[in-house]
Amino acid sequence: MGRTSDAREKILSTAQALIELRGYSALGVAEICKAAGVPKGSFYYFFESKEALALAVIDEHWTGQRRAWAQILNGGEEPLRRLFLLFEATEAGQLAGQQSCGTVSGCLFGNLTLEMSNHTEAIRTRLQEIFDEQVEMVASVVGEALGRGEVTVPDAREAARAVVAQLEGQVLFAKLYNNTHRLGALWANCLALLGARPSREAVAAV
Amino acid sequence: MGRTSDAREKILSTAQALIELRGYSALGVAEICKAAGVPKGSFYYFFESKEALALAVIDEHWTGQRRAWAQILNGGEEPLRRLFLLFEATEAGQLAGQQSCGTVSGCLFGNLTLEMSNHTEAIRTRLQEIFDEQVEMVASVVGEALGRGEVTVPDAREAARAVVAQLEGQVLFAKLYNNTHRLGALWANCLALLGARPSREAVAAV
Repeated sequence: MGRTSDAREKILSTAQALIELRGYSALGVAEICKAAGVPKGSFYYFFESKEALALAVIDEHWTGQRRAWAQILNGGEEPLRRLFLLFEATEAGQLAGQQSCGTVSGCLFGNLTLEMSNHTEAIRTRLQEIFDEQVEMVASVVGEALGRGEVTVPDAREAARAVVAQLEGQVLFAKLYNNTHRLGALWANCLALLGARPSREAVAAV
Repeated sequence: MGRTSDAREKILSTAQALIELRGYSALGVAEICKAAGVPKGSFYYFFESKEALALAVIDEHWTGQRRAWAQILNGGEEPLRRLFLLFEATEAGQLAGQQSCGTVSGCLFGNLTLEMSNHTEAIRTRLQEIFDEQVEMVASVVGEALGRGEVTVPDAREAARAVVAQLEGQVLFAKLYNNTHRLGALWANCLALLGARPSREAVAAV
């Protein structure tokens, strides 16, 4: 049981790394198994298809990222400061990826949206659910900031969509230019999108 | 000459449609030729590789889009109104694509950035040039609006990057949710990103 469980983990982490490097379509099951050092029979023991593997990679990645987002966005800091920390963590994560593999890999969910959402409905649906969750998590913080009179947007959810869209757009450029400094603009842009009037304490803390 | 020239056009337009539907990696030269109704020999007469074809598709698409952007952004309207018209044209273009093939295809350049930029340097460079041009075109209009005191950003180019990033992010969501109404938020988000104080005439015209 220990060994088979290892094999599943190996396939998942290898597939994620290969998808981040080269996208999903270009990959074959045989190549993933070879890179993971796992026999092809094991693959089909754990995953009924390459699409099932992609869904598992997406779920695994979101489980980790949701935990990190929740830790930041539900934390004890002032609301706007939490959004700042989210962008800081995003930039740090992309920089760590660049340092380990040479290129900024971008957002796995954004990458798969643009590569796959139009030809795999199961993946489209799962990615929609993840971005919906991201927007809800950000909207909750924007709602808190609204309650404190620190932002001036008419609708917290619509504003959160704009913030997540800005995040995806800037991560796309960070990937294209292989430059994580692009993400440094996120904080000022977020404040502008929220019509922010941050408290003196929140600004000082940044 | 007429016939060979037709063949090149057929390959280009077929390749663009297939790339928008299924991405670049999933396509083979044989499949493109079959769909275009062109012998494989013709393909290699015009393009030395699949990558050369991708670059030609990118250039062809940007030639048309740049013309449309220039017509709007260099037009005689007030600066902020021109940005509004750009978003309106983007939404109309995505809606027309959805009506013709059933799904929102998104931005070809954004799609290829996320799929290919990390494994094809020639394509990365070309896409960088295109997004640089887009940012310059928008920055020029933002500069005009700055001169008229209608926006309050400290740096026109940085603000233009935020606007183009927002555009790419929202087009990504329009594709993911197969819903062009997502693009309706672009105008308000753009005004927020620019710290806009549009003239009464510009607002009324919208």
